[in-house]
Amino acid sequence: MLIDGVQHRTIRVAVDGASVELIDQRELPFAVRFETVRAHREMATAIRDMHLRGAPLIGAAAAYGAWLACREFEALSPSRFAAALDAAFETLEAARPTAVNLRWALSRQRAALADAGDPSDAVRRALAEATAIADGDVAINAALGRHGADLVERLRAERGLDRVRVLTHCNAGWLATVDRGTVTAVLYELRERGVPLHVWVDETRPRNQGALTSWELTQNGVPNTVVCDNSGGHLMRRGEVDLVLVGTDRTARNGDVANKIGTYLKALAARDNGVPFFVALPSPSFDPAMRDGDAIPIEERSPEEVLYVRGRDRSGGDASVSPYAPGARAFNPGFDVTPARLVTGYVTERGVFDADGLAAALSPDPALSPVPGPGAS
Amino acid sequence: MLIDGVQHRTIRVAVDGASVELIDQRELPFAVRFETVRAHREMATAIRDMHLRGAPLIGAAAAYGAWLACREFEALSPSRFAAALDAAFETLEAARPTAVNLRWALSRQRAALADAGDPSDAVRRALAEATAIADGDVAINAALGRHGADLVERLRAERGLDRVRVLTHCNAGWLATVDRGTVTAVLYELRERGVPLHVWVDETRPRNQGALTSWELTQNGVPNTVVCDNSGGHLMRRGEVDLVLVGTDRTARNGDVANKIGTYLKALAARDNGVPFFVALPSPSFDPAMRDGDAIPIEERSPEEVLYVRGRDRSGGDASVSPYAPGARAFNPGFDVTPARLVTGYVTERGVFDADGLAAALSPDPALSPVPGPGAS
Repeated sequence: MLIDGVQHRTIRVAVDGASVELIDQRELPFAVRFETVRAHREMATAIRDMHLRGAPLIGAAAAYGAWLACREFEALSPSRFAAALDAAFETLEAARPTAVNLRWALSRQRAALADAGDPSDAVRRALAEATAIADGDVAINAALGRHGADLVERLRAERGLDRVRVLTHCNAGWLATVDRGTVTAVLYELRERGVPLHVWVDETRPRNQGALTSWELTQNGVPNTVVCDNSGGHLMRRGEVDLVLVGTDRTARNGDVANKIGTYLKALAARDNGVPFFVALPSPSFDPAMRDGDAIPIEERSPEEVLYVRGRDRSGGDASVSPYAPGARAFNPGFDVTPARLVTGYVTERGVFDADGLAAALSPDPALSPVPGPGAS
Repeated sequence: MLIDGVQHRTIRVAVDGASVELIDQRELPFAVRFETVRAHREMATAIRDMHLRGAPLIGAAAAYGAWLACREFEALSPSRFAAALDAAFETLEAARPTAVNLRWALSRQRAALADAGDPSDAVRRALAEATAIADGDVAINAALGRHGADLVERLRAERGLDRVRVLTHCNAGWLATVDRGTVTAVLYELRERGVPLHVWVDETRPRNQGALTSWELTQNGVPNTVVCDNSGGHLMRRGEVDLVLVGTDRTARNGDVANKIGTYLKALAARDNGVPFFVALPSPSFDPAMRDGDAIPIEERSPEEVLYVRGRDRSGGDASVSPYAPGARAFNPGFDVTPARLVTGYVTERGVFDADGLAAALSPDPALSPVPGPGAS
């Protein structure tokens, strides 16, 4: 997507064909930094220290890291090459041990390299597999975006809407993926089709991912307005929201949706006001092994995230402030579960489904499922 | 209530009997400052520059300001006294022109002074009226607190609860009144009765009044934990909330409740999870002239409140930070309306009522209604 009018992916092979370029997201939305990664250890650092974030993107980064390792060891004898590569995979795998996608991407690389001839053949195969993983993410998101845009266009026609007003929560954006995002894939597709659009962006306390969503939408020409998480119900009561569209970290077999904390409150307000509530669900985020939402473990995060807010002060300096008295206690659950009964439909890369149709529609299909598991936002 | 173990009102006559002491709230919860006000112009400044806040408290401050004016002009001839007093009332009335309570308190003072003999008699009458206004606020809150505590004790007995877990939103606390607060009057009464209690305090973006609530509860021995506004639905789904208790800026004749933005979302979550949702409603905040909630005007506040968060940085300095990219747009409605159908009951100084019983129960009774109109939090 666009940054300052220039098309980017969050990660790609550099023009020298020998290194990887990625967007170092640590200073977003204030500064965009690019980083060139030439060795697998640098990639492990970039993943561990969160130069990049978002489960699909972490998977792609690990896959590219495996390719860099193959390049580093290409001159070694086949046996020493294999040993060095094993160690490199371990290094990459340890970068963020909780990210399912990282292990999955490395498993795909291991399988791709299993039948490799010499180290040079391994280098070629690793690049092909990393490219397939990254391109697969983009393809899923693009297809999801088209189905979602079709849905919104139908809704717009039915209701005779001029401009479509969407409310979203958190950042299910291109910055968490290789390109286009999930919720944002729908929004960008609508923008490209010329559908007039306005997005209410929940600030999404405590980590304020709304700042990323607002920034990337503005960079890509989608008008948007930030609101406090408290405001969505009022906006819906006043008829200012045509649909709610959110992402998901994991959706259970029965359609219960685990997503960023606060999503459930917006689903309740949507139901109370007759506003359609849709979930952008790439098939890898559907977990048929999870019977219902109550089975999904909810991460409890640091109270510091509630007690302090990080940003830029009025002179542009990086700062964290707390509005709370010293000693204040806080509790910080990272996600909540929205029951399937509150979800109007699920927008996937294979079409739009209701809860009853999900399991049949999203049966595993490895070719279309490059990025499994929960997102790390 | 207590600050560092010492009993305070937010405002009172100083021991010299010639000035007013108030808590300068501008640095709360980080620093408690006391201010001695000796003249009506100083009081007007304290109101205008928000050394104090909260509609009931603003009313009391204006009443004390009128007394100070009488003292300042006591030595004048009766005719010059009357003229000087008129000017003083105008100065006080202009301090915050939108606060209904301020004009109402000054009307009460005008009525009390109408039959005064000489200026010395006026001084005595003005002090008596200011005291009546302040004491009336405390009496309403204390009575509301007792009825609320009775209710919670019944609920506790019915459910066999050991500890009662209450969720609240914003600051309906003693700091917005002369003493005890409204929601907090119930909590402090429970604490004094020895009922084990835990309070989930919504941070209440964008102005983070949860920081005040958390601070005053801690100062008064009520265990509490701050949560993001996003978390309440999750807590209720997990069975961690026994009741929700919120304040109100204005409640319409049909029982619709205008309160701090985000209240409606908590009412929806309470309904969805079978959690009782009560409103602490002192009779002056009941507005029988307002047919329903949709008739209540909703204040739209500055986007700056959303885009910047003010607090203390890690070195203890006062700072404001923004997590948003320069140029981000925000929308900031200050209040929302919770429909009466979502309210389990209203806790007033005359007992606990449902929506149908409100109008009859809260018919105007001037002796018990010292503080009319919406709160200014």
